[in-house]
Amino acid sequence: MAGNTFGTLFKLTTFGESHGKGLGGIIDGCPAGITLDLEAIQAELDRRRPGQSAIVTQRKEPDQVEFFSGLFEGKTTGTPIGFVIVNTNQKSGDYSHIAETYRPSHADYVYDRKYGFRDYRGGGRSSARETAARVVAGAVAKQFLSGMEFQAYVSQVGELGLDKDYRDLDLGLTETNAVRCPDLEKAAEMESYIKQIRKEGDTIGGVVSCVIKNVPIGLGEPVFDKLHAVLGQAMLSINAVKGFEYGSGFEGVAMKGSTHNDLYNSDGSTVTNFSGGIQGGISNGMDIYFKVAFKPVATLIQSYETIDKQGNKVIAMGRGRHDPCVVPRAVPIVEAMAALVMADFSLRAKGARIE
Amino acid sequence: MAGNTFGTLFKLTTFGESHGKGLGGIIDGCPAGITLDLEAIQAELDRRRPGQSAIVTQRKEPDQVEFFSGLFEGKTTGTPIGFVIVNTNQKSGDYSHIAETYRPSHADYVYDRKYGFRDYRGGGRSSARETAARVVAGAVAKQFLSGMEFQAYVSQVGELGLDKDYRDLDLGLTETNAVRCPDLEKAAEMESYIKQIRKEGDTIGGVVSCVIKNVPIGLGEPVFDKLHAVLGQAMLSINAVKGFEYGSGFEGVAMKGSTHNDLYNSDGSTVTNFSGGIQGGISNGMDIYFKVAFKPVATLIQSYETIDKQGNKVIAMGRGRHDPCVVPRAVPIVEAMAALVMADFSLRAKGARIE
Amino acid sequence: MAGNTFGTLFKLTTFGESHGKGLGGIIDGCPAGITLDLEAIQAELDRRRPGQSAIVTQRKEPDQVEFFSGLFEGKTTGTPIGFVIVNTNQKSGDYSHIAETYRPSHADYVYDRKYGFRDYRGGGRSSARETAARVVAGAVAKQFLSGMEFQAYVSQVGELGLDKDYRDLDLGLTETNAVRCPDLEKAAEMESYIKQIRKEGDTIGGVVSCVIKNVPIGLGEPVFDKLHAVLGQAMLSINAVKGFEYGSGFEGVAMKGSTHNDLYNSDGSTVTNFSGGIQGGISNGMDIYFKVAFKPVATLIQSYETIDKQGNKVIAMGRGRHDPCVVPRAVPIVEAMAALVMADFSLRAKGARIE
Amino acid sequence: MAGNTFGTLFKLTTFGESHGKGLGGIIDGCPAGITLDLEAIQAELDRRRPGQSAIVTQRKEPDQVEFFSGLFEGKTTGTPIGFVIVNTNQKSGDYSHIAETYRPSHADYVYDRKYGFRDYRGGGRSSARETAARVVAGAVAKQFLSGMEFQAYVSQVGELGLDKDYRDLDLGLTETNAVRCPDLEKAAEMESYIKQIRKEGDTIGGVVSCVIKNVPIGLGEPVFDKLHAVLGQAMLSINAVKGFEYGSGFEGVAMKGSTHNDLYNSDGSTVTNFSGGIQGGISNGMDIYFKVAFKPVATLIQSYETIDKQGNKVIAMGRGRHDPCVVPRAVPIVEAMAALVMADFSLRAKGARIE
Repeated sequence: MAGNTFGTLFKLTTFGESHGKGLGGIIDGCPAGITLDLEAIQAELDRRRPGQSAIVTQRKEPDQVEFFSGLFEGKTTGTPIGFVIVNTNQKSGDYSHIAETYRPSHADYVYDRKYGFRDYRGGGRSSARETAARVVAGAVAKQFLSGMEFQAYVSQVGELGLDKDYRDLDLGLTETNAVRCPDLEKAAEMESYIKQIRKEGDTIGGVVSCVIKNVPIGLGEPVFDKLHAVLGQAMLSINAVKGFEYGSGFEGVAMKGSTHNDLYNSDGSTVTNFSGGIQGGISNGMDIYFKVAFKPVATLIQSYETIDKQGNKVIAMGRGRHDPCVVPRAVPIVEAMAALVMADFSLRAKGARIE
Repeated sequence: MAGNTFGTLFKLTTFGESHGKGLGGIIDGCPAGITLDLEAIQAELDRRRPGQSAIVTQRKEPDQVEFFSGLFEGKTTGTPIGFVIVNTNQKSGDYSHIAETYRPSHADYVYDRKYGFRDYRGGGRSSARETAARVVAGAVAKQFLSGMEFQAYVSQVGELGLDKDYRDLDLGLTETNAVRCPDLEKAAEMESYIKQIRKEGDTIGGVVSCVIKNVPIGLGEPVFDKLHAVLGQAMLSINAVKGFEYGSGFEGVAMKGSTHNDLYNSDGSTVTNFSGGIQGGISNGMDIYFKVAFKPVATLIQSYETIDKQGNKVIAMGRGRHDPCVVPRAVPIVEAMAALVMADFSLRAKGARIE
Repeated sequence: MAGNTFGTLFKLTTFGESHGKGLGGIIDGCPAGITLDLEAIQAELDRRRPGQSAIVTQRKEPDQVEFFSGLFEGKTTGTPIGFVIVNTNQKSGDYSHIAETYRPSHADYVYDRKYGFRDYRGGGRSSARETAARVVAGAVAKQFLSGMEFQAYVSQVGELGLDKDYRDLDLGLTETNAVRCPDLEKAAEMESYIKQIRKEGDTIGGVVSCVIKNVPIGLGEPVFDKLHAVLGQAMLSINAVKGFEYGSGFEGVAMKGSTHNDLYNSDGSTVTNFSGGIQGGISNGMDIYFKVAFKPVATLIQSYETIDKQGNKVIAMGRGRHDPCVVPRAVPIVEAMAALVMADFSLRAKGARIE
Repeated sequence: MAGNTFGTLFKLTTFGESHGKGLGGIIDGCPAGITLDLEAIQAELDRRRPGQSAIVTQRKEPDQVEFFSGLFEGKTTGTPIGFVIVNTNQKSGDYSHIAETYRPSHADYVYDRKYGFRDYRGGGRSSARETAARVVAGAVAKQFLSGMEFQAYVSQVGELGLDKDYRDLDLGLTETNAVRCPDLEKAAEMESYIKQIRKEGDTIGGVVSCVIKNVPIGLGEPVFDKLHAVLGQAMLSINAVKGFEYGSGFEGVAMKGSTHNDLYNSDGSTVTNFSGGIQGGISNGMDIYFKVAFKPVATLIQSYETIDKQGNKVIAMGRGRHDPCVVPRAVPIVEAMAALVMADFSLRAKGARIE
């Protein structure tokens, strides 16, 4: 498989299944000398944790990260940082009903076909539980990039979307509500809507928007590793993601060049920012902003028709404790992946020219 | 820099600037024994070539590919395939006016900041001319993947979009018109619109849609190298791309899980295909389809305000022979990148399990 | 740093310091469906363990490996295999004397210069304790490559060397003595010699030879990733290694081509095997054999002159429990690295040609 | 295959067969702003060129390198440097006799078995002609590393070896004779010996030694990418190489630690240098020195017994213009690979710690 590493210089490799002994990862390439705030790392993990509010899954997982290496006297040493999050809430019994059938729009069927069999408990490796390791590594990356600011937020749930751009929002309000939407009125609507969806045993999609501020000029490596291309891969690698756009995105398609071009101020900044902070794949110092589309979670608390391993039609019943809408908990994951991307490009930028 | 390689097993590394001696690449990892149809490769390059119709740039570049290695008696040998496309139309004089100023929404400014200076002729490495090498390699990949079908087409120009899904279109009509839109009525409208835009000295964006058929089950490497994540990176690495979505994409956000889930037929195929042929990052054998958003080209044939290297405001004038809308010529590029992605995952899938 | 991954398809990434909480690794790319014998893996680790005989370090480390992921119902699943070996014998007090000084021919000085400071306890990441993770991964690789045989042995200690080639030895005797030398008479001499060296508080170098049998034809990827080139890197990456040769090695230099060339038998095997089972970087099906030179361990149980961080000359005293000669414990490490190399090339060979 | 790239940040990818249209490569990751002396690059290529003296192959290949990209106004731009060396002396007829038989100790047999067939003309990709591209890239690397000095020389031909260490030789004499041996008396003996060997239609092996001076402290990335491990891979990837050792090498095996340890001077330099300038895989600022063993060339100008593709025994006759001893021409190749290794590690060292 060998698809479990992200990054080229600031590299994260992860392991772990939903219902195995635990999950974790190795961060290789983190520079030496960073004083790590371990509580801040745990706090990021807590933002992702199940059971944190009434609109997310009620599974109880403490998700406590333990570091094994790469730190000495509170600082990174330049050696690989190994960490583990022990799984404590493995009710594998919950999943015996899916051992022999394939849940629609899950990875069950393709894992069986690709690998010959699968760890069916809770989705195994295909579970979004895997993203916990990303959040830990992203939190380390954020501390490395202490000058940059990463702020993601929920901008749409189902058809309920914000009509304001991030510049007209108070992003500081994001964490004040369970939905993680900085428009409090919309947040309340979204919250009600998610609760209603959950009552129906159904699920709904959403959009997470993200802004990165204080980005130095010059990050991104043409031609294949353009900053937005790798950012796109990073976001699309998160479970349930169906689309990515940055700057003017799909809306920019309908604009004329004469409107879309970002004119320069004397200091090299631009008057508008349809470019989304990236030109030719390289950061230009303006805010980077982008959107990530999440599909409705595939696990429904309803009965559904599907097939078993032999291709027989069966009626199954969704059970367990699942998120009716994934975006509130996806916010820290989006930030984590963004931080990993920026950390990697920060290191990659170092050799661009002789001094 | 070291960002000029794409792929892990079927690897393309490219070189070349818009106005240097030439451009080209090395395909490393192409299996031995493929009988290559060199005319078919040149034909793909011709689909991308400037001057092919009235709505694209009128530059005259023959774009003839020459292979240097990796072939023997008409077949690939398993050794690296090196190829060159000599630049024959280098009117560098055309670009002297941009040596000292930064064109808005181009990469001029960031290249200067990142590398200290730049080859300003025609955008140098940041020119979309670089994609010619991708088309050559993609054409080789297509022949390796002879069972799969790649069909891209223009589905939107400005606000003129198709309201039909690919299943309701005759994709065979794509190449019958200059726009490369399989809906002939829309194609005519789009063509008129592009001509009008060009008269204004302006540019307009568009969307390229793409379908991949006959995909084997099991391609894609979780968790970071999910099939759609790498596909997304591939597309976002093409010049002027601002967004990528696959399957239900951004529209899927507003759907409920009970509608969005793709129920199984007895043979493992699905009744609907909101998943876009990919589940958990792995192909499930259904059609893969996706959309790529292109911004309006930044080069306008108008006067515009910008800054010079010293930050002084200057009035400049767009010149040269440019595309008013990039999507017709982007169609073969999108296919090429899709083929490179699929070739790489075809090789990567081989070791998934013991036999 | 990002130098802690070995392999391209069968990939091992490791973490851990000598005196941190523990060490471990992630194997990414191991095919699904292998029934793993966990006791056999632990047995390999036991071959490397301190305290196993009178001629190795008397540290007591149980070195028990715990697997966290990638296994289900006894078989590999194709997902990353995460494992941890908890450090239980961290007498960090032993090392306070080296916090402020640099031990000669250790990595203390260069780590300080490269990273700004170091985890000085037991050498931190530069300790050979790190190789425990390699042995675990190598043991997994061996089970994947169940057809191949890996047999390393000690062929030289100081000036005491075997005058027989591996074909004239009974390699089955290797594990019958503490030195791991299959020539029992020489083994006894070597053992006495090592004991005498230890009494002197000194150390001595040695050579580990290794044979790989039943190698399929076709492993190795020209031109830079020739089989012996990667094997060489693998061996040279082991602590204390100063040289590597395969086949005729340095002695082959003095031979004429007319003697050195390996003539073919009708079945493609060769009469002689000066090539060491590798031609043009690709295995030819004959035995692969090579030698690895280990320097004398740098830690002496003597007083020695050195410098402190300020460059002042100081007299220090070697302490702790160290190996007087590293080669007996290096035998399983050499095998492990050889197995990792062969596992990776086995996967890499799969796409060499179309079927 | 995908084994044709060397390096991780300063990356060289090569292509080309002995008797195809040409060979070349792409250097990706070379920093911007280096003023390249193209004549110096060609001069390196001339050092490797056939026909340069009476003791090397008399083939006439001008080996003129042409750069296609990555340079502007005499300086590197940070974009990939593509270059080609056109083959002008393709007497393919010379090789028709080997189309159907396998030359002993060449790669003919394994290429056929791995790839199904091969470009048999002159050994195709397995020919040492491929190293011309390495020499070009190495020459670029040398100019990037203008502070470091790379000096390789022939230290042994057959059994004729230097008994002096590099510190007791005047390396400036290396290029004064056809053998490239800085001991002029030995050089004369070696030259006579090579001529005699050639008369016999036979070949002989040799050793190339190399010294790298003025190396900054801190290059090398533990644990797998130790400086000497990657250097070893680099050297072993050169055609005909059978062994590599650095510092005390295989001789160090017989030394006691109390002799072998390199004591520190107050400035961090060491009194002795058995470590060969590398400790724990990281450069310590002392000279790096190493030896590379080359086997006798496999092509003899004699008749020999071998097999054809069907396994029938045949008598064949070596023809063509070949080197009786490869080491004189290997000197610039060894330096080139050393320079590539050091260039890569120079870039990799940049992110080792926060500033």
